[in-house]
Amino acid sequence: MTKGEQTRQVIVARARQMAHRVGLEQVTVGQLAAELGLSKSGLFAHFKSKQALQLEVVADAVAQFTRQVVVPALGVRRGLPRVEALFEHYRAWIRGQPRQQSGCILLAFSYEYDDRPGPVRDALAASQRDWHDAVARIARTAAEEGHFAADLDVRQFAFEFEGLGMAFQQSFKFAGNTRAEAMFANGFAALLARSRPH
Amino acid sequence: MTKGEQTRQVIVARARQMAHRVGLEQVTVGQLAAELGLSKSGLFAHFKSKQALQLEVVADAVAQFTRQVVVPALGVRRGLPRVEALFEHYRAWIRGQPRQQSGCILLAFSYEYDDRPGPVRDALAASQRDWHDAVARIARTAAEEGHFAADLDVRQFAFEFEGLGMAFQQSFKFAGNTRAEAMFANGFAALLARSRPH
Repeated sequence: MTKGEQTRQVIVARARQMAHRVGLEQVTVGQLAAELGLSKSGLFAHFKSKQALQLEVVADAVAQFTRQVVVPALGVRRGLPRVEALFEHYRAWIRGQPRQQSGCILLAFSYEYDDRPGPVRDALAASQRDWHDAVARIARTAAEEGHFAADLDVRQFAFEFEGLGMAFQQSFKFAGNTRAEAMFANGFAALLARSRPH
Repeated sequence: MTKGEQTRQVIVARARQMAHRVGLEQVTVGQLAAELGLSKSGLFAHFKSKQALQLEVVADAVAQFTRQVVVPALGVRRGLPRVEALFEHYRAWIRGQPRQQSGCILLAFSYEYDDRPGPVRDALAASQRDWHDAVARIARTAAEEGHFAADLDVRQFAFEFEGLGMAFQQSFKFAGNTRAEAMFANGFAALLARSRPH
């Protein structure tokens, strides 16, 4: 990796931390430069505009989500084992690492941008569609393997899977509910039970 | 209503519109005064601080949610009819009025404030607990009437009910999925089916 690429990564990582705290829209080049000890012009050498920086933060978060949640599940045997692996990695993603901020930052961004049309919102919406497609496709492998009903509505499965994840995030992170993780697991178990062959 | 109370309501309504657009944290007294054609000092006569204004916007949204979702359901016969009424009013709330911004503003606020400790976050978390309590209590009436299993975990019911609502909001408002409302209804029907007496 070149020095320029390293600097770029450091900038994106710090911008993401700032976005976690104050929202992506509030990540200003000036404040970011100050936090990093760089000049504003030095920062602009890496990102031509605030929007280019925001899009890079989104792309970085999407890449990390794909790497930590989707890719490991795809490494597991098709069918129910893969669906269960997806759930485990998604749960770990929302719960977060110890001493890191928890919660799905992409979900937070989607609430921040839902009323702000433009390239950032478009990138977030596209990543959400990709995520739903991935869940549906993985549920489809379980139907194909005979672990789920052959006529399972995998889009409905993805909708409910995502809903449980959002309720977990909200309940765990926002309301501090100590039962949140067990409730997420219970809801997922019920969704699996309903999806089995009739 | 006195003139002062009327002005106060106009200020809160406009602040809420602004919050919908740019986030509650970005509602500045200066810009709000400019939009309303009031002086900054005139606005401060009604709200001593930005935080007092933010708390009023939250309280106003909570009151409207209670009036439009919880109270009408409580007017319906205890048991399954009341649970179904709660679903219908919640669905209407998320869908929004024609030509109004859709989506639950309280949910948007909760994502904005989940990493910002303080009185605004506390007010939002308290309102979320009240809402979960209301859902659980209404589900309990269905268990008492014999429409749901006597041993139903009504907290789990509330968790999943809320999850479906969040998936609906996300899918409808953010991803523009035309099947979102049908998926919300399907998920709710499945939750009801699972909750019936064994």
